[in-house]
Amino acid sequence: MNAEILCVGTELLLGNVINTNSAFLAQELAKLGIDVYYHTVVGDNNERLKEALAIAFERSDLVITTGGMGPTYDDLTKESIADYFGLSMVLHQPTLEKIHVYFDQRPQKMTANNEKQAMIPQGAVVFDNQNGTAPGCAVTQNNKTAIMLPGPPTEMQLMFAQSVRAYLAPFVDSTLVSHTLYLFGIGESTVENLLKELMTTSTNPTIAPYAKNGEVLLRITAKAPNTSEGDRLIQPVIDQISRQLADYIYGIDIDNLQTAVVKKLLAHHKTVSSAESCTGGLISKLLTDVSGSSQVFSGGVCSYTNTVKADVLAVSPDTLAQYTAVSEETVMEMARGVRHLLKTDYAVATTGIAGPDGGSDEQPVGLVYVAVVSEDIADVQKLHIDFGPLTSRDDIRQYAAKVALYRLWLAIQ
Amino acid sequence: MNAEILCVGTELLLGNVINTNSAFLAQELAKLGIDVYYHTVVGDNNERLKEALAIAFERSDLVITTGGMGPTYDDLTKESIADYFGLSMVLHQPTLEKIHVYFDQRPQKMTANNEKQAMIPQGAVVFDNQNGTAPGCAVTQNNKTAIMLPGPPTEMQLMFAQSVRAYLAPFVDSTLVSHTLYLFGIGESTVENLLKELMTTSTNPTIAPYAKNGEVLLRITAKAPNTSEGDRLIQPVIDQISRQLADYIYGIDIDNLQTAVVKKLLAHHKTVSSAESCTGGLISKLLTDVSGSSQVFSGGVCSYTNTVKADVLAVSPDTLAQYTAVSEETVMEMARGVRHLLKTDYAVATTGIAGPDGGSDEQPVGLVYVAVVSEDIADVQKLHIDFGPLTSRDDIRQYAAKVALYRLWLAIQ
Repeated sequence: MNAEILCVGTELLLGNVINTNSAFLAQELAKLGIDVYYHTVVGDNNERLKEALAIAFERSDLVITTGGMGPTYDDLTKESIADYFGLSMVLHQPTLEKIHVYFDQRPQKMTANNEKQAMIPQGAVVFDNQNGTAPGCAVTQNNKTAIMLPGPPTEMQLMFAQSVRAYLAPFVDSTLVSHTLYLFGIGESTVENLLKELMTTSTNPTIAPYAKNGEVLLRITAKAPNTSEGDRLIQPVIDQISRQLADYIYGIDIDNLQTAVVKKLLAHHKTVSSAESCTGGLISKLLTDVSGSSQVFSGGVCSYTNTVKADVLAVSPDTLAQYTAVSEETVMEMARGVRHLLKTDYAVATTGIAGPDGGSDEQPVGLVYVAVVSEDIADVQKLHIDFGPLTSRDDIRQYAAKVALYRLWLAIQ
Repeated sequence: MNAEILCVGTELLLGNVINTNSAFLAQELAKLGIDVYYHTVVGDNNERLKEALAIAFERSDLVITTGGMGPTYDDLTKESIADYFGLSMVLHQPTLEKIHVYFDQRPQKMTANNEKQAMIPQGAVVFDNQNGTAPGCAVTQNNKTAIMLPGPPTEMQLMFAQSVRAYLAPFVDSTLVSHTLYLFGIGESTVENLLKELMTTSTNPTIAPYAKNGEVLLRITAKAPNTSEGDRLIQPVIDQISRQLADYIYGIDIDNLQTAVVKKLLAHHKTVSSAESCTGGLISKLLTDVSGSSQVFSGGVCSYTNTVKADVLAVSPDTLAQYTAVSEETVMEMARGVRHLLKTDYAVATTGIAGPDGGSDEQPVGLVYVAVVSEDIADVQKLHIDFGPLTSRDDIRQYAAKVALYRLWLAIQ
């Protein structure tokens, strides 16, 4: 079966909202082994919505829509699909009761418009919305299936997980199983060169590299009748790649570098602190994104002025005067200072020029020093971060923070 | 003239990459006054790309594509469009020379494939790519125009700004002018209720509210022959809304709250520091996102343990014992402690339960205290952050940081 994703909403069409629903649904359908060939976006316009639906059903067995399920006159998705299938709209009493309860618990008054959300195409399967008032629903006729989901991502995603995945299960006879290796410190093209033979000869599983924010992800995907069979196909490939690229792989199916760091610190019963200048708190923000990080991250100091570096982190004024704030010497004293102040096993520190202003010939924008220290370790990295003419302040800060986390991850033992 | 955006790429179709190109182009075309009625995404597949092109040209005067401009065999956009218009592909010598120069400066070898990027539909206008090797191009025939742009957003966006906007100018006779008011501390539905009459009676400019990450944006858009005439239409509406919603508007056409805060601190020659527990460095990260923030933000302490709160920020152990770390008393001492330590005019502090673990009946997940202090001000807010069952750790931290920035913005004078 092949599918099309049709997102309805003028805010998407005008670019006021970035369409994340298509990507979410595409990934979920891929996991189910359903091929998606088209995404379409159309505004809240009856005529163009109908044309888009007709084109979609012409070329696809399954059309999943998001949006156009709200209470107002220009929310038309259900009506247009009912029209397409020649069905009338009928009241779904349990939904109406739910909407009444919803408004009873809230200061806003229910309006007649809200009742529209309880109308569904005759015979549709209804999906409960646990994050809002608009239910989803599905209709199948003549081997064509329409699944209608609400537009807000939180509502749509929960509904997919709670209802739609199970609804689709009978339609599919195989599943796609994916595992992703996370690499840092190596470029995408180098990965491709090293794995060229494996990538071209392996068809199930397939191996696909992606570059993402300075990291490389290797996604290994197998098509199999079930998850355990998929895993059985994938494991030898993971083993082989892990041998070849051992120095760069920091995790498998892990969310990100900070999660890998927190896990490794927990496993080794170690703690860390941070001293940040150019990254301005980003490293501590990233580490504390991870639930449970309070067991291993004591805290950090963002020292955005020399006074704070000297007074709080005990960086020597001589060091600052002789080598400046952006130097190997300063970053090491920052790291040692915060480790001493917060009494942790490890400490990371950054100092540099994030730009766009503040650069000079000796210290250009993108120059960043990163230090990791422990009782035994004194690791310092000098970086020239430059992704081309559009390199932003944010790019530089994000990449510097990642290098800090990666060097920390390497150091923990 | 009406337009369609057609993004080509299997990575988009599979949802591995979120499609930001459509939103960017839609916004840019709206500014030019060009109506966009459809976005389509199709994979790197010759047959389906041709079908999508045929449908697009059937219903639209202008089709802008992104992607499928690379060197490999499955990059087919230019070839498919040449086919549609009945044009042959010809070598564009200046582009070939540019590609040679590009590779001469780099360690990678140029392959025969790369020459493919210098092939263009006969008679096409070529757009230089200053961020990569694939040029863009445009073809017009029988009142149908195709504009082909590269897929990587950095290449596409720069090319649009440098070449495409000027190329499109002769096609349009009016322009859309937009200004956006940024509000915090008020809900979207309340804004709609307060402005209902103005919103329903005003047709040029139009007024559209958007909720975005706990903030409300009011976009006021006028269609006019030129920018200054658009501004003239918009100004009275901005004035009226500013009078009605004065307490909530923190900026016009400003990037975000942190930018508003930094601007106001600069204007008043004041400094600020931060003491963060549950937000873990996010406030200092946000403030230092703003270029030039080093003039007003001295630094911050992320105090993720009670020891750091007591040792570094001088929160009294009695306070921690009697009221716990998540209390009005602790957050005030944190704010006062960091203000004293870093010698700033203002200080902000947060403490709370970001979850998903660590909550209790007395201190549930989402309970956050936010303090803003100065010599004269001692402002403390108790928040219960709950956006429904899917409220994430990140939601709670982001919202708490925004409240802190907004309260700080209010306090600065």
